[in-house]
Amino acid sequence: MIIDKLIDNIQKTENPTAVGLDPRFSFIPEFIKKECIEKFDKTPKAVAESFLIFNKAIIDAVYDLVPAVKVQVAMYEMLGAEGIDCFIKTCDYASQKGLIVIGDVKRSDIASSAEAYSDGHLGMLDIEGTKHNVYKEDFITLNPYIGWDSIEPYIQNCKDYEKGLFILVKTSNPNSGEFQNLNAEGIALYQRVGSYVEKWGSMLMGKNGYSSIGAVVGATHPDEAKILRQIMPKTFFLVPGYGAQGGKAEDIAACFDKNGIGAIVNSSRGIIAAYKKEAYSKFGEKDFDSAARQAVIDMKIDLRRCII
Amino acid sequence: MIIDKLIDNIQKTENPTAVGLDPRFSFIPEFIKKECIEKFDKTPKAVAESFLIFNKAIIDAVYDLVPAVKVQVAMYEMLGAEGIDCFIKTCDYASQKGLIVIGDVKRSDIASSAEAYSDGHLGMLDIEGTKHNVYKEDFITLNPYIGWDSIEPYIQNCKDYEKGLFILVKTSNPNSGEFQNLNAEGIALYQRVGSYVEKWGSMLMGKNGYSSIGAVVGATHPDEAKILRQIMPKTFFLVPGYGAQGGKAEDIAACFDKNGIGAIVNSSRGIIAAYKKEAYSKFGEKDFDSAARQAVIDMKIDLRRCII
Repeated sequence: MIIDKLIDNIQKTENPTAVGLDPRFSFIPEFIKKECIEKFDKTPKAVAESFLIFNKAIIDAVYDLVPAVKVQVAMYEMLGAEGIDCFIKTCDYASQKGLIVIGDVKRSDIASSAEAYSDGHLGMLDIEGTKHNVYKEDFITLNPYIGWDSIEPYIQNCKDYEKGLFILVKTSNPNSGEFQNLNAEGIALYQRVGSYVEKWGSMLMGKNGYSSIGAVVGATHPDEAKILRQIMPKTFFLVPGYGAQGGKAEDIAACFDKNGIGAIVNSSRGIIAAYKKEAYSKFGEKDFDSAARQAVIDMKIDLRRCII
Repeated sequence: MIIDKLIDNIQKTENPTAVGLDPRFSFIPEFIKKECIEKFDKTPKAVAESFLIFNKAIIDAVYDLVPAVKVQVAMYEMLGAEGIDCFIKTCDYASQKGLIVIGDVKRSDIASSAEAYSDGHLGMLDIEGTKHNVYKEDFITLNPYIGWDSIEPYIQNCKDYEKGLFILVKTSNPNSGEFQNLNAEGIALYQRVGSYVEKWGSMLMGKNGYSSIGAVVGATHPDEAKILRQIMPKTFFLVPGYGAQGGKAEDIAACFDKNGIGAIVNSSRGIIAAYKKEAYSKFGEKDFDSAARQAVIDMKIDLRRCII
């Protein structure tokens, strides 16, 4: 079960952090930008190439300290085909380094469309008997608004290929309560979605008491996280919103169980663009990767301050 | 406003049909498959190439009869970079033929990730002052579970580049009521989402009384469609689920206003794979495109039977 591998990685590194590989062109050091623009002009290919160089350096700098990366597909998809190629290569590189790869795709579809996403991202493409493993993710994120019909097409591939899901339950944005906190027949919608995710999770239970069907629970809503931790004891949480979005380690503690497991916390620009922050400016842009490593160490200390 | 162009196209063709370009390898005639596999082996590139040949032939056969195509990105995304290249080329080809292009992507994200989707799919990529129009869609579909924070990043690009959105309100899957029909503080969640979409729509009103922010309302739930038509008078509906999924023209009539406008009905495999159906078998697989044309004509007659 992939959830066991994720938990093993967290325990080995003693660090429940996922590094968010969500590059933006403005995060890329000038010397990398320059090299890529000289080679490919001011094109999406140049940006994609710069992302790949940047990501590989970040992965090299942190892979021994963290259990996982979360790769936000939007940053790559915007670049077209070249971007998707870079997304796949980034996931593959992280995977080769022993990291668990979470593809943050937040897909939502049904029937043959959901099967296509499922086979592409998690399963295999069968082209007249020849099988292709196209994407290289271990987990992907999904949006539950459409219901079970939009989750079920992923389950068999999760079983067959040891993959997992993180389903949006309570998102980190300020306004996430607009629909998610509506009282839906006695309990808030996010709680109802959460209880369905917990139920669905029984299909993919690992040996550590957690399921390979996890939930996305934002760091920025600690009261809701506390409730969800209670009603979803078997569900592992992927927690976005730490740092730049305002989530604090104290708030996030509620996402963990009494043994200090049960969640992985994502940080993206706080790590990958650390070199641009005052606190890490001594590294300079040439050492952007060392700055990222230091930011990972600091985040680990900050999290462990609040989590057993 | 793009919604006006869509309505103009519908009125010119007297046909509120979007052809769903959602190819599967099993839909592709053997002679195209063979050609592509000979050229590119049993690879994702061969499948992508076969999809492009297939799509272009379908577009050539129907572009004078329909106002729009809906392109389901999952079918392309599953193929990796080659698939995204084919998706973009398909959208571009349809657009060149004067068709409105609806990218069925159902994205859902916030902040910089949503901005990336927005700039890639609807706006422009600005690479150090050089602008790129990467994707070629006129509308994209979005999932509302995250709330306004996941919609707002698209609005400015819609204004600046004459683009539009269709937001999931009531989906066509059998089990869509699981969350969407929960009573959320007095009204069903889908109605509440619908009333937000109607409100958001006031930001992008066209001259025909409809907004460029539309809603996805499944053909398979006519009672809900009737309610939504009443509470969302300014919102244009994209209606999936006709034909293969069980939605009938009689059911869909409720999605239209008293002037016979207000909705566009998608059909995918019922049109593009018509040649595989008994009713169109006389065309044979060589004439798969003529079969698609005939299926469009038959669908138009069927719809117009029930819509003014």
